[in-house]
Amino acid sequence: MNELTMNLKSHSKIPLYEQIYGYIKTDIQSGRIGYREKLPSTRALSKHLEVSRSTVELAYEQLLSEGYIEAEPYRGYFVAQTEELYCFKKERVQPTLPKEEKKKYRYDFSPNGVDLRSFPYNAWRKLSKDILMDDRTELFRSGDSKGEYGFREAIGSYLHQARGVNCSPDQIIVGAGSDYILMLLSMVLGKEHRIAFEDPAYKQAYRMANALSYETVPVSLDKNGMMVSALEESGADIAYVTPSHQYPTGTVMPINRRMELLRWALKGEGRYIVEDDYDSEYRYKGKPIPALQGYDAHEKVVYLGTFSRSVAPAIRLSYMVLPQPLMEEYERKNGFVHTTVSKVDQLIMQRFLEEGYYERHLNKTRALYKSRHDLLLDGLKPMSDILTVSGEHAGVHLLLTFRNGMTEGELIKRAAKEEIRVYGLSDYRIRETGEEKPTILLGYANLTEEQIRDAVKILEGCFRR
Amino acid sequence: MNELTMNLKSHSKIPLYEQIYGYIKTDIQSGRIGYREKLPSTRALSKHLEVSRSTVELAYEQLLSEGYIEAEPYRGYFVAQTEELYCFKKERVQPTLPKEEKKKYRYDFSPNGVDLRSFPYNAWRKLSKDILMDDRTELFRSGDSKGEYGFREAIGSYLHQARGVNCSPDQIIVGAGSDYILMLLSMVLGKEHRIAFEDPAYKQAYRMANALSYETVPVSLDKNGMMVSALEESGADIAYVTPSHQYPTGTVMPINRRMELLRWALKGEGRYIVEDDYDSEYRYKGKPIPALQGYDAHEKVVYLGTFSRSVAPAIRLSYMVLPQPLMEEYERKNGFVHTTVSKVDQLIMQRFLEEGYYERHLNKTRALYKSRHDLLLDGLKPMSDILTVSGEHAGVHLLLTFRNGMTEGELIKRAAKEEIRVYGLSDYRIRETGEEKPTILLGYANLTEEQIRDAVKILEGCFRR
Repeated sequence: MNELTMNLKSHSKIPLYEQIYGYIKTDIQSGRIGYREKLPSTRALSKHLEVSRSTVELAYEQLLSEGYIEAEPYRGYFVAQTEELYCFKKERVQPTLPKEEKKKYRYDFSPNGVDLRSFPYNAWRKLSKDILMDDRTELFRSGDSKGEYGFREAIGSYLHQARGVNCSPDQIIVGAGSDYILMLLSMVLGKEHRIAFEDPAYKQAYRMANALSYETVPVSLDKNGMMVSALEESGADIAYVTPSHQYPTGTVMPINRRMELLRWALKGEGRYIVEDDYDSEYRYKGKPIPALQGYDAHEKVVYLGTFSRSVAPAIRLSYMVLPQPLMEEYERKNGFVHTTVSKVDQLIMQRFLEEGYYERHLNKTRALYKSRHDLLLDGLKPMSDILTVSGEHAGVHLLLTFRNGMTEGELIKRAAKEEIRVYGLSDYRIRETGEEKPTILLGYANLTEEQIRDAVKILEGCFRR
Repeated sequence: MNELTMNLKSHSKIPLYEQIYGYIKTDIQSGRIGYREKLPSTRALSKHLEVSRSTVELAYEQLLSEGYIEAEPYRGYFVAQTEELYCFKKERVQPTLPKEEKKKYRYDFSPNGVDLRSFPYNAWRKLSKDILMDDRTELFRSGDSKGEYGFREAIGSYLHQARGVNCSPDQIIVGAGSDYILMLLSMVLGKEHRIAFEDPAYKQAYRMANALSYETVPVSLDKNGMMVSALEESGADIAYVTPSHQYPTGTVMPINRRMELLRWALKGEGRYIVEDDYDSEYRYKGKPIPALQGYDAHEKVVYLGTFSRSVAPAIRLSYMVLPQPLMEEYERKNGFVHTTVSKVDQLIMQRFLEEGYYERHLNKTRALYKSRHDLLLDGLKPMSDILTVSGEHAGVHLLLTFRNGMTEGELIKRAAKEEIRVYGLSDYRIRETGEEKPTILLGYANLTEEQIRDAVKILEGCFRR
């Protein structure tokens, strides 16, 4: 074989050597050029195709490096044995199962919303680019199994300043998302525990605990959060709490209840408090209250946090701070477990924290959410005869408790008829006593001010007979 | 307050408006400008600083959006209540605990090596850049909890073509790393199982099963892989196997043993085979053998795979293919669990697969590893009187079984003295019978041809009395 005919496009985006490589590869894969057949010399082919010799050499090098051809000294290039080479074709896969039709809403007051329009794309893209330009091999080598040390230092410094958490970077474990962090935690704690959950609760964690086959028990709240007397009676030895902003009722646990909870933990050897600080970034009145962990002098609090909520849900970056003795236990039993977060993402977030982007992002979204919060409160004022607002001044949702004679289901249905989605508190309850007052949640993080103004007006029409 | 003095640098990389923003922010944070104090008008400040008015306006807008100042119509800009704003300082954290000194080796024959010099940085960076330029908000919104559907389609298509795996994308779950995938699998299967591991074994999975509090039992191998008679006797109902290239012995399980294993699974209701295809990408002789999953007609095989090994360890991208009934169980019990892989990484890998980068990368590294494999085999030939080679023609390591009178420990120590790291098979054994022949593993993926040539010569000196 001495001639290879190919239709090269000189104005294509694909470089010439790539085109030549592609033609020959296809011919080898399809068997048009057989095993052991000799390729034309680079000089002959370059003349035939009217391209430079170095172009052909580049193409041959590529074929050589991928195993399609072999070089024999003084003899030239020959087609290699290619049956063990990979060759993937685009293929049609089975069609997707028909998905349930999702109801469309004009306004969705989701309490888990995040304003993604304010995500700092440019900063994120710039950091990502910088990091991928950096020291190359190290970036893709397996890293620290608990998370990169520098990243854990940055988290520790943030937690200390923003949340009053006391810890060394050695107590921090990084993981991809809160669900995963709970799986890890369950490996450290073991399964012989009864876990108390706030009722109503952050259901995701409650479901996770059940899926991990823990015995779980709901404990009632009063206006200060989880009732410690009821916790004591429940026989639980682990209390899962959200003191900075109880999810979903919005209660902020006052200092004396925090102390009471810590005293409860001290009374039993294996007792622990799991503090989920999931929703702590946004407060619109007064100084942030330090984390419960900061008051703990006896290694009783496991602190959980995440960047998925404050930065973006698709960024899977969470962490936990273990008390020293539990960390030693973890190192001993589970130290072999590899981290689930790619090094690139860890380094981006580290610089996002260190270079002030996170501070700016938090202040910006806080200002944004505060306006929406204020606007929503204002819009609800004319309805103060039929509802009471609670859970305000923090987080990204409010609760409305109604006394207009409508049931929760009725309230939701009437809003849905106007294509407005609101959320019932019942979805967050673990137990039903039948005494519950009809209450709905309105999240405002993912709606513009105009949308909120508009939607609230329509809601008033729905909720008045 | 009518004058703000600041030392602006006109030739700085930081834009002027950013410098002005920074000065005023610092003054507000430090209290030099107090709450309710009025800022100079944009016109006055621009005159004073000799910059354009729009520069000052940009700075004020930034301060406004982050909540440091407030605008009052017809009156001007005032310092806001800032005590609830975030302000993080660089702070010194506790110093790192002194780490154990790691012994330095000149040559490390790690069996888990990956040649990171051949990682396609340019392609990865390009895809990453393209994706971050794309449709913005969708990228950071919470995605499909099992992994993006398009990515799962791409994995399904790859598995079908490269490994003969039969599955729909609906049976695939994506997760960050093999450890996490095992955690997920344990949630579907529940804890009431006894799991049989090959002995010697892939220890990471064995440790994980123990950490997840499974009862585990080692089962011996013969030259065809896990012995099914011994498996039957073990009382296990789950068999964890690596048929494509047993780790670490390198055995390829022949078809009749695979059938025997499938028949074993059929004999009991809750029996399953977990096929870990961890090391399947590299074969240097003949066609790849299809996965065990491809022969399974009775929904008995759980298939595990990863890209961390073939692309880069720091890229946390693994997946499992569940039999239909287990997938239904998963959807019902664990469907709420969020994926652990960021959407950006999923989309990069999807395009890496779809646009032919993966095929090229595999063929390239395969050619590279094959040369090293051949070279290492050649270099070992002169020692055929004192050792037998096994596990060749696949994977990225070989086994050497010695009959020179030295113990395994002695072999390792002698190599270490020459700063060469080799690995003992004992580390992979679950049980010790005392009958084991001294065997070491040599991984060659992370050494250049020159290094291999050099190291093998030195090793010959070590291993001869």
